Amino acid sequence: MNRISKFFLPIKAVHVPSANTSAKKSGSELTSKSQKLLINLGLIEQSSNGCFFLLPFAQRSVDKVIKVINEEFADIGAGKISIPCLTQSSLWKKTGRFDENVGELYHVRNRHDKQFIMSPTHEESITHLLSSIPPLSHKQLPLLLYQISSKFRDELKPRFGLIRSNEFLMADLYSFDKSPEAAEETYNHVRTTIKHIFKRLGMFVTEVKGDAGMMGGDCSHELHVLADIGDDSIQHCSTCDYAANKSLGDAHTCNQCKSSNLKEHKGIEVAHSFLLGEKYSKPLTASFRNADNKLVPFVMGSYGIGVSRIISAATEALSTDDGLRWPLPLAPFSVCIIPPKEDKNKTDPISAVEKVYEAVNKIEDLRGDVILDDRTNQTIGKRLLDGKKLGFPVIIVFGKSASEDIPKYELHDVNKDECHYLELPDLLKYLNEKYSSELTPKSVFVHQFV
Amino acid sequence: MNRISKFFLPIKAVHVPSANTSAKKSGSELTSKSQKLLINLGLIEQSSNGCFFLLPFAQRSVDKVIKVINEEFADIGAGKISIPCLTQSSLWKKTGRFDENVGELYHVRNRHDKQFIMSPTHEESITHLLSSIPPLSHKQLPLLLYQISSKFRDELKPRFGLIRSNEFLMADLYSFDKSPEAAEETYNHVRTTIKHIFKRLGMFVTEVKGDAGMMGGDCSHELHVLADIGDDSIQHCSTCDYAANKSLGDAHTCNQCKSSNLKEHKGIEVAHSFLLGEKYSKPLTASFRNADNKLVPFVMGSYGIGVSRIISAATEALSTDDGLRWPLPLAPFSVCIIPPKEDKNKTDPISAVEKVYEAVNKIEDLRGDVILDDRTNQTIGKRLLDGKKLGFPVIIVFGKSASEDIPKYELHDVNKDECHYLELPDLLKYLNEKYSSELTPKSVFVHQFV
Repeated sequence: MNRISKFFLPIKAVHVPSANTSAKKSGSELTSKSQKLLINLGLIEQSSNGCFFLLPFAQRSVDKVIKVINEEFADIGAGKISIPCLTQSSLWKKTGRFDENVGELYHVRNRHDKQFIMSPTHEESITHLLSSIPPLSHKQLPLLLYQISSKFRDELKPRFGLIRSNEFLMADLYSFDKSPEAAEETYNHVRTTIKHIFKRLGMFVTEVKGDAGMMGGDCSHELHVLADIGDDSIQHCSTCDYAANKSLGDAHTCNQCKSSNLKEHKGIEVAHSFLLGEKYSKPLTASFRNADNKLVPFVMGSYGIGVSRIISAATEALSTDDGLRWPLPLAPFSVCIIPPKEDKNKTDPISAVEKVYEAVNKIEDLRGDVILDDRTNQTIGKRLLDGKKLGFPVIIVFGKSASEDIPKYELHDVNKDECHYLELPDLLKYLNEKYSSELTPKSVFVHQFV
Repeated sequence: MNRISKFFLPIKAVHVPSANTSAKKSGSELTSKSQKLLINLGLIEQSSNGCFFLLPFAQRSVDKVIKVINEEFADIGAGKISIPCLTQSSLWKKTGRFDENVGELYHVRNRHDKQFIMSPTHEESITHLLSSIPPLSHKQLPLLLYQISSKFRDELKPRFGLIRSNEFLMADLYSFDKSPEAAEETYNHVRTTIKHIFKRLGMFVTEVKGDAGMMGGDCSHELHVLADIGDDSIQHCSTCDYAANKSLGDAHTCNQCKSSNLKEHKGIEVAHSFLLGEKYSKPLTASFRNADNKLVPFVMGSYGIGVSRIISAATEALSTDDGLRWPLPLAPFSVCIIPPKEDKNKTDPISAVEKVYEAVNKIEDLRGDVILDDRTNQTIGKRLLDGKKLGFPVIIVFGKSASEDIPKYELHDVNKDECHYLELPDLLKYLNEKYSSELTPKSVFVHQFV
């Protein structure tokens, strides 16, 4: 049985919901709603400017993201690997990316004075891998490989907690194809898969033409969560529905239909796909054998999903000023049960609580995902307030009617701000329906650009 | 259906089993059996001296290790977190570890010239975390937190592949207690859990008194896999069964019973537990509130498991010169099925193969863990040789008797070097018995010091 008292959840400011003062560290600014809530409620903690501990509740959400990514990438035949963080600087010199980005790269020298960088992305590394092994045959393509690992960027201004941090968790997939046409097909296939991943995570994302930036290549697409604190500006044309990152050009007319019906939105980038062509495979001589048995450079694609950033972006978009709100599939726990305050004159009500806990925990989508707020020295009201702040999507309260002959429980549907009084069979039916509909890919949270 | 042709497995030297020449890189030495086999068979690949890519087969084994660690650590109430790799050097200066180990630390400066290290272990970081939050109450102790992440050590002589590498995956758990007695109880509890983890991984490990080295503290215990290439020397007393790392002292008599019946073994360290006392909590002022409401430093413990090293150590101990051998719970795939060579004059035998695949894949312990060697342009003999080299614990071959009226299949029990001709029901019975007995913690692979 999961008990809240057994979890490391160093809640700091739960009694001062609007305080901007707590958890403020020298050198950092608590400039976003999600950062303030995640720190004050004990889900993350700053270790140095731009670097964060993920504490158990945040780690649970991250592990939920990772599970969905692993399942979806396995479905498209992508192989999971690990790429070292330390990358030889010489590889980045060959592709011309070393000088361009000195400011954002962390440099390391080993004891033999050999230069490395702590990679923010791994195009060079993985291309080097493909050039190190005996050449593949064109029959083995497309090849898709990915990893989920920490990446590093020496940000000029780290901010918004996990959104713009110096060390972050990213899933990065790389594709290798035999022709530009095949590469484009793979590119579209992976993009569709990534959109499906966000559907399964219950997140509203918006796809726009991207700014390839330092990555280079032929074409890129970004996925954004729209939010006021977003670092990116997106231009959307309400005439033809075309949308692009504003940094692609600052025209006052639509790139596609030339109308001037442009509207600007702020977005947090959560994924970015790049069609790279031969930008990396040529200088690093990564080739395959084509049908004529000739060595030809791979045509590559690259795809990043900001795993830790998702936690901040998803909560930023949904939370209230007073409390975290999660897309259902991302909440650290799906259901929290609040038993009565302890009363030494009464018989122990724990068996009734255990019965409800076990019944809810038996629902397939909720197994292992139910937690008991066993701090029974505190009032129900205080714990309900905490539970709403933490953003458990459903809170079941053992109020007065729970001790009646036919017990009724308070079910708080937190995202909907609804409360229902239900007997156990109806409560289970409610949960079954809620979770089986909202945890499917057809989740109500999903949309295209609006 | 898992198909070998769909996996990135860049096999290099499968036709030259004894060659020491292939896969040799400048600056690296292929000095161990496991390193040679893991590289030549396409499970790992060097990225720079001492840094390795884990390719999909090795990654599967690593993910199996991680799953067992997560389950066992959850059982003892340890919370899973993430700790940044970048640690402020100032913390290591406070604990006195900064100057001592300059050689092995990777140093990084950010754009503001602030000093960091890429942590090889996280005692300072996690103690800093506990000093940053509002003090815990003694009632909340013991607190156990762990992570599984990449660690960094600038080795003077990286070698043996994943065994002594510069970047490696480690599980590190930290315990916080209210008294030395409570800390020792936690220490023994976690040590028992870690031994249980190795039992579940099917690995022979040996516990000896450890050399605390740079870690300091009151007491330490190491777990070793005995192997000729081991960096550590272990002295074992055959009179009283006491065993310790030789570096603890080079006496010619047993520390415990004073007999001179000492024997020396070579060992690869795969886990190390430390009872740390207040070595970190005092200088970093990490305190809790005791029963008298006074702030008192935590009494700490630290526990490391070498996750990526386990892959090399386990295969080093069991493999032959010609092929990898895995403990059953660690093999990338548990069962490989080899269908007949393609023959355009015959009807497609794939339906029979699918039937066997599905039946085997339905066995609970084998779900998702069966792979088809679908390279049917190659002979059965060639693929059986490859399968034995890769060390699938069981290989099922569709030989001549598979096309008889009552088909019989060849079941190769590779670790036992046995071959059985079995009809499908007997084959399933054999697998059921083998896996349900060998995947339990009572695995035959487990022993104490001998």
